[in-house]
Amino acid sequence: MSHQPHIASAFDRDLEAVQALIMKMGGLVEAAILDCARALETRDEELARQVVAGDKVIDALEAQVNDETARLIALRSPTATDLRTALTVMKIAGSLERMGDYAKNIAKRSTVLSQSAPIGGTAGTARRMAKLVEQMLKDALDAYIRRDVALAADVRQRDKDVDQIYNTLFRVLLTHMLEDPRAITNSMHLHFIAKNLERMGDHSTSIAEQVIYLVTGELPDEARPKGDSTAFVTSAKD
Amino acid sequence: MSHQPHIASAFDRDLEAVQALIMKMGGLVEAAILDCARALETRDEELARQVVAGDKVIDALEAQVNDETARLIALRSPTATDLRTALTVMKIAGSLERMGDYAKNIAKRSTVLSQSAPIGGTAGTARRMAKLVEQMLKDALDAYIRRDVALAADVRQRDKDVDQIYNTLFRVLLTHMLEDPRAITNSMHLHFIAKNLERMGDHSTSIAEQVIYLVTGELPDEARPKGDSTAFVTSAKD
Repeated sequence: MSHQPHIASAFDRDLEAVQALIMKMGGLVEAAILDCARALETRDEELARQVVAGDKVIDALEAQVNDETARLIALRSPTATDLRTALTVMKIAGSLERMGDYAKNIAKRSTVLSQSAPIGGTAGTARRMAKLVEQMLKDALDAYIRRDVALAADVRQRDKDVDQIYNTLFRVLLTHMLEDPRAITNSMHLHFIAKNLERMGDHSTSIAEQVIYLVTGELPDEARPKGDSTAFVTSAKD
Repeated sequence: MSHQPHIASAFDRDLEAVQALIMKMGGLVEAAILDCARALETRDEELARQVVAGDKVIDALEAQVNDETARLIALRSPTATDLRTALTVMKIAGSLERMGDYAKNIAKRSTVLSQSAPIGGTAGTARRMAKLVEQMLKDALDAYIRRDVALAADVRQRDKDVDQIYNTLFRVLLTHMLEDPRAITNSMHLHFIAKNLERMGDHSTSIAEQVIYLVTGELPDEARPKGDSTAFVTSAKD
């Protein structure tokens, strides 16, 4: 760990308060990811409604992080690493807010899907994707707190697995639609859900990349394997 | 216009340099939005390749905006409105970068679609959506430069129109898929394209909202009509 020990400054104390908000946001988003997938699989409309309602709290926390970080910058005039840390905190809050939106969107669609026949094991697959994404987010936030570049790099690599499940699910849904036109509308919703989970994986990865940037001063860019290959799918059977 | 005249400070000069980068990014993203939709409609694979390649330039500009804004904050220690402006610039750059990604994704899918039969007038509809979104972005950036809250509020309202076209296109695509299973794969791609255009509208709106926040100190939140109603679509015919 290359995090240098130094005497706690006024900046550090203020930053810790903001970081506590980030961790609170992170906890709520992790729960929302798992809950929206569980609501989908168990057809729990009440749980879905809770996820939708809970997004307002996440949004409010992002606004608070932005306000307090801006105040901290104005008050403490941080430079170099301290400033980079403050800006990173705002970026992480932005990613968490977007992830909360995706969870809300999944929860909304799950209430529609709970009214008709499930499509194969797709809801179970979505739940497994959600579990992977939630773990990525948890580790990305741990990597931030501990300035752990190795863990952040590991999160980045795991995004491949999420992308792979998404690509498989895309083809499975295409096949279902081709075989049974009555499955088309629900498949479109499930496809959206899968895409939103895949995007949440991207956001977890983006948080991990911010950590790498914060510690090393360099953003990994081209190295990351970009996962959604469905842009090039020309047939469900190829 | 409530923008107060004041003596140009070192901060203002630095900010102008960063703003010039934002305008350059904005111009590239506007062109990418129109080009990806034109590539789709005219089946121009070379143009699509240019949009894909051009995204790297947009990404590099975002990194430059982030670096230069961080340096400006570290060097000039701005407070109050100046700091808010600097942070807004970074947020705008983030939105522009995401929009560039969406345009790239549309361009990629357009090359797949150009290899098979078009689906009704959907490519033309996508082009009209792109035109609306491009104009929204242009006006949002003008609103930023001129600190024009009325224009920003107008951009926000126009997002409804983009959402409406998207909702209609979603139903049209569902109908095509139900009527002709061979249209399913291409309809999925077109749906992605429409969704990406709708998201670009959201990002233009988000830039407009940043302008309103910058000038008035308040973010409009609940007021904005949220447009994607397809989460609740249970059948293509309802």
